Amino acid sequence: MNKQIVLASRPTGEPLAGNFRLVEAPLPELAAGEVLVRHHYLSLDPYMRGRMNEGRSYAEAQRLNEVMVGATVGEVVASRSAHFQVGDQVVGMGGWQEYQLLDGDRRGALRKLDRSPIPLPAYLGVVGMPGITAWYGLLQVIAPQPGETIVVSAACGAVGSVVGQLARLRGCRAVGIAGGPEKCRVVVEEFGFDACIDYQQHPDTRSLAAALGAACPRGIDGDFENVGGRILDAVMLRCNSFARIALCGMIAGYNGEAIPLSAPQLILVNRMKIEGFIVSEHMERWPEALHELTRLVAEGRLKYRESIAQGIESAPDAFIGLFKGRNLGKQLVRLI
Amino acid sequence: MNKQIVLASRPTGEPLAGNFRLVEAPLPELAAGEVLVRHHYLSLDPYMRGRMNEGRSYAEAQRLNEVMVGATVGEVVASRSAHFQVGDQVVGMGGWQEYQLLDGDRRGALRKLDRSPIPLPAYLGVVGMPGITAWYGLLQVIAPQPGETIVVSAACGAVGSVVGQLARLRGCRAVGIAGGPEKCRVVVEEFGFDACIDYQQHPDTRSLAAALGAACPRGIDGDFENVGGRILDAVMLRCNSFARIALCGMIAGYNGEAIPLSAPQLILVNRMKIEGFIVSEHMERWPEALHELTRLVAEGRLKYRESIAQGIESAPDAFIGLFKGRNLGKQLVRLI
Repeated sequence: MNKQIVLASRPTGEPLAGNFRLVEAPLPELAAGEVLVRHHYLSLDPYMRGRMNEGRSYAEAQRLNEVMVGATVGEVVASRSAHFQVGDQVVGMGGWQEYQLLDGDRRGALRKLDRSPIPLPAYLGVVGMPGITAWYGLLQVIAPQPGETIVVSAACGAVGSVVGQLARLRGCRAVGIAGGPEKCRVVVEEFGFDACIDYQQHPDTRSLAAALGAACPRGIDGDFENVGGRILDAVMLRCNSFARIALCGMIAGYNGEAIPLSAPQLILVNRMKIEGFIVSEHMERWPEALHELTRLVAEGRLKYRESIAQGIESAPDAFIGLFKGRNLGKQLVRLI
Repeated sequence: MNKQIVLASRPTGEPLAGNFRLVEAPLPELAAGEVLVRHHYLSLDPYMRGRMNEGRSYAEAQRLNEVMVGATVGEVVASRSAHFQVGDQVVGMGGWQEYQLLDGDRRGALRKLDRSPIPLPAYLGVVGMPGITAWYGLLQVIAPQPGETIVVSAACGAVGSVVGQLARLRGCRAVGIAGGPEKCRVVVEEFGFDACIDYQQHPDTRSLAAALGAACPRGIDGDFENVGGRILDAVMLRCNSFARIALCGMIAGYNGEAIPLSAPQLILVNRMKIEGFIVSEHMERWPEALHELTRLVAEGRLKYRESIAQGIESAPDAFIGLFKGRNLGKQLVRLI
């Protein structure tokens, strides 16, 4: 049997447990060309919240009563495809389920992993889509110069932690924003950022801007934005002329909260650039990004942390936790 | 005697007549190397409002009790400089006064105009800073492709009118936003835009967005933004994926009004780029821009309109009128 989580109903604000439903489906027989993958880990990411809404966004909406979308790593346990053998480790978009049956000929659906010193779940984080997102947004959108100051929100997360480390490796000052003393400690002590600000200690924009001012004595040249709302407002108050903001996420508004940008005139006054991007639209850069990220992880120069929930049944609650800041590092669900 | 307008006090909101003071100063004798220019026309531009505030912006603040800053065209009436002769027509930053005495050796302070078929005041508008602003923001920031739809606010103004015409010449659909039926008529009938929306007929964002939707059946690919506030909010609701916004001005907020951007998440959802720019930081492109603009005006392919106030005494009121939308086209003051 294959346990699956399907979208039972669309959330109106924060996602709730009742929006999901656990179902069990029998494992079908393999047809010619098909591959059966047993998932070892499922990735939970904030973007999934957007898919749960009805209607047009940059991606198609998640359909009701279908298996929730999501990246997975696992192992081929049965194959009638010439491209895959039993035992192959693969990364794909297998969704919130224990097994996936798919056509082995479908280009790009499954990527075979070389045996590497890097643990399998890292392919969902630091050497997967989140890591590449950090790489692309920092290097291609912000394009930092040595000596510049780069700020990143959700700095302890799967994306933010990579942004700051790559910025440091490029000779920049890296300043994180995260929620709570433990995350801030990890950001500085484990990920090696120059400083990290606990936004929970700064409930208003002015106070947060003052803390950013202290942490960024030469102002902010680049901002990798994962949160939006008052976090972004405060960052903008400290931006230098010609600052670049890579808009990667606005988790502050994912559940429908209004998140106006208070002072867009600063974009003009400081001749700033704000650019939104989605890493899946830049697949041509993935090999280059993966090459660098894999090398850095293998060399021990790029650190990562994971929060791991156990069992497919735990996925909805772990997902809900993303929006409450409960995870520290990449949120995964272990399925084995 | 030289009549001058100085900044008497800093406005707290809208500029008022009392913020300015008319003074008379005797014309000094020329020292060796100096040039005396009699101004024929003074340019009034929204950016001057920003200079009237205290404190840091991208430019130095206008000093109290000093002649208001401003671009001027005029004629050399006395010269002890080898670089200028009596009768030379010149464009410079002479300020709100009838005459300017300056060092003829100061590089870039005065630009001599070739005798051309283009009338002198046009060098303050369509073939001056406003025209180059339009050229730079449209071609370098938005970089429109043939067939795209370009929207510009303050479409009847010195900058906006050039944006739409250049967009049309590049094979784009040009849609203006302006205040009142007469301006909208001029934008379409004289400047040749495909459509123009009267924002006064659409007091809320939703209604304005609906009108934009009707005028832009294929959505908006580029926005040259001069106004901000609810105008920009409505434009963003109609932007296509990968739309570019060149942020040139936000006159809606020049007098201190709050002008939050309501839905910055659209920058992410639509992978947009918003970029602020100031044309005086891109002087390396001015010759190329002036060459094209001058040619187009000479060929009759680039139209412009002027609102002309008479006499230096009228400058404050004409300037105040800029923020009330009283001008139609480039606002000038004739000083001869």
